[in-house]
Amino acid sequence: MKNRKYYSYNEFRDDLKVLIQKIDYNFDTIIAIARGGLSIGQLLGEYYNIRKVYSINTIGYDRDKKLDKIEIFNIPNLKESQNILIVDDIVDSGDTLVLILDRVKELYPDKNFKSASIFYKPSAIIQPDYSIREAKEWIEFFWSKDLNS
Amino acid sequence: MKNRKYYSYNEFRDDLKVLIQKIDYNFDTIIAIARGGLSIGQLLGEYYNIRKVYSINTIGYDRDKKLDKIEIFNIPNLKESQNILIVDDIVDSGDTLVLILDRVKELYPDKNFKSASIFYKPSAIIQPDYSIREAKEWIEFFWSKDLNS
Repeated sequence: MKNRKYYSYNEFRDDLKVLIQKIDYNFDTIIAIARGGLSIGQLLGEYYNIRKVYSINTIGYDRDKKLDKIEIFNIPNLKESQNILIVDDIVDSGDTLVLILDRVKELYPDKNFKSASIFYKPSAIIQPDYSIREAKEWIEFFWSKDLNS
Repeated sequence: MKNRKYYSYNEFRDDLKVLIQKIDYNFDTIIAIARGGLSIGQLLGEYYNIRKVYSINTIGYDRDKKLDKIEIFNIPNLKESQNILIVDDIVDSGDTLVLILDRVKELYPDKNFKSASIFYKPSAIIQPDYSIREAKEWIEFFWSKDLNS
């Protein structure tokens, strides 16, 4: 089994402090990919005093034992937005982020979109505009673990 | 000035463990009132394995120096939901929760809604169905403070 790394709230907080140093984009809206991006969206929304923090949701369907279809739902209305930051915990294969970007750009061709994540993988089909750490292990995020311990 | 209480991630985590002991409602959807409810939505969504974690947003308008109008936006589509838990960090005056409940019940009269918050105030016009702590001071939540320190 792959190595696992528990990722604590304190590491998360410190990484977000690095992330805000990197972000050189004046955004008016945050879209948090649920569920992984929700806390990031909350803390960044508080820090930048942005009230338009929305969620967008995905579900993966298992077909022939292989996860090969991702469906996007709860796409926010972005009529009143111009510069949007999409946040997620990890860009793994990149499939989800590419699908979401394709969909929102199709719906809102005149808006600007950038993306940020804490973890990235060099093997992903897309790299977020802003990220912090390469995921070299299986990450066990505190938000998935802490209520079970 | 009113006393202030810093509310840390560790207190939050421990309080959510108490909250899940109290919740006796089988919900299929979480609506997090942004921004305060977003982390709660994420951790509860992970714990209950619920992917339908949505945000709902409010903005308060200052009129004649008094905050007297709250507008709700980004109301999620609940067609595919039946039992919804609305979460927020604190039910203070209760105005926001009442407005949101009124609106979603008007839009979805056949769905069930319950509410949960960490902090409540006895003076509020509504008490959430599930809550943990009475807010006796001004609460400084970690998600508002930690990126600034």
